[in-house]
Amino acid sequence: MLDKLQTQLKKQFGISFNDPNLLVEAFTQGNYLNEHPKFNGRDYQRLEFLGDAVMQLQTAQYLYKNYPSWDEGQLTELRIAMVQTRSFALLAKELAFNDYILLGRGEELNGARHRDSLLEDVWEAFIGALYLDQGANTVTEFLTQHMFAKINTGFYDQFIDFKSKLQELLQKNGAVQIKYQKLSQTDLDEHNQQQFTVAVEVQGKVLATGHGSSLKNAEKAAARAAYQQLMQK
Amino acid sequence: MLDKLQTQLKKQFGISFNDPNLLVEAFTQGNYLNEHPKFNGRDYQRLEFLGDAVMQLQTAQYLYKNYPSWDEGQLTELRIAMVQTRSFALLAKELAFNDYILLGRGEELNGARHRDSLLEDVWEAFIGALYLDQGANTVTEFLTQHMFAKINTGFYDQFIDFKSKLQELLQKNGAVQIKYQKLSQTDLDEHNQQQFTVAVEVQGKVLATGHGSSLKNAEKAAARAAYQQLMQK
Repeated sequence: MLDKLQTQLKKQFGISFNDPNLLVEAFTQGNYLNEHPKFNGRDYQRLEFLGDAVMQLQTAQYLYKNYPSWDEGQLTELRIAMVQTRSFALLAKELAFNDYILLGRGEELNGARHRDSLLEDVWEAFIGALYLDQGANTVTEFLTQHMFAKINTGFYDQFIDFKSKLQELLQKNGAVQIKYQKLSQTDLDEHNQQQFTVAVEVQGKVLATGHGSSLKNAEKAAARAAYQQLMQK
Repeated sequence: MLDKLQTQLKKQFGISFNDPNLLVEAFTQGNYLNEHPKFNGRDYQRLEFLGDAVMQLQTAQYLYKNYPSWDEGQLTELRIAMVQTRSFALLAKELAFNDYILLGRGEELNGARHRDSLLEDVWEAFIGALYLDQGANTVTEFLTQHMFAKINTGFYDQFIDFKSKLQELLQKNGAVQIKYQKLSQTDLDEHNQQQFTVAVEVQGKVLATGHGSSLKNAEKAAARAAYQQLMQK
């Protein structure tokens, strides 16, 4: 079972499971077992229990080692953005994990296969299986390639509310007026794609500008740029 | 610094830190740094960030491997009882960690040295330092000896509310009447110590009895015995 997944893991990450049953367990949803009484295996929940803790430590360890000047507040904030449902669901989808889940019929009909909560569970269970089968170092290599590399691309910024963070930072010493001002709105191409540019101003002074495919995204980009500039001072 | 702690770790657990500065960092509270500007070190907070995740994984892994028949609900429940403030504070006190903390003067005057929240932080920071300095296997050996061995002595039962759990279990299929009945109260010795014995009854039928140094403890013991009997059926 899951031959295609095994081929993919081998090709993309050089990973071959010693015990492929662990891999199958990680992708087996509870009701599938009820509907297939002859299927000899468990569902993913025990592996998910283990994998959840593996993800916490792997991420904490990566951040601890790679951001030696950060305090625990900064480390915790990025860890929370990385270790959560939407993040894990996206990572799982990028590897097409949803195609491989052994799913109960009722869940299939309910659309559970593409639901973030199921993908998160399966992601954690897969990490638990990988940890048991291959050890901590292989998990670190896998995550470095597939997950931690995304930190520098700004992937996790989508899970951080920079508008709130900027507001907190600016209002530490009392109320100030923060305004987001649309500077431009440009048609990019014939597919109705647009680019918005927004400036974030405090007491009438421009702190930074940002671009985005919507007004909201441009505001978030401007808040992020202003926040990061202020934090570097 | 911390020579006495190092001797104790060596004698009791065979642990010698390669980098004793990591050990010092784990025991350094923030305000101590402010008050000793010439002290060349950091406070424990980054190590605490790491150690928190190490404790989660070490505990999850121990339970996963040693309770192969438990489902993730049972594993999670015991993990929660084990990985929490009071549990860590007790483990830290047993090793007299409170004696070694480099504490700010204000915190000292406030009695922080014996406060569970500080002891929890220092415990996690110590585990983070041990993990960095000695690796995961040494942490596992240390915890197996000092922490996991307590599982079979019932140490963690004090953090589990067995009366609520018994009630949930018994009322799964509708309301039932649960009664705790005092059977006896005996003077044990001249120091005013007493032993209480309590029976827990459901619909007039005795499920189990329990003993304790107070009525409340005897009720908890009875609830625990009844719960565990019912779970084994």
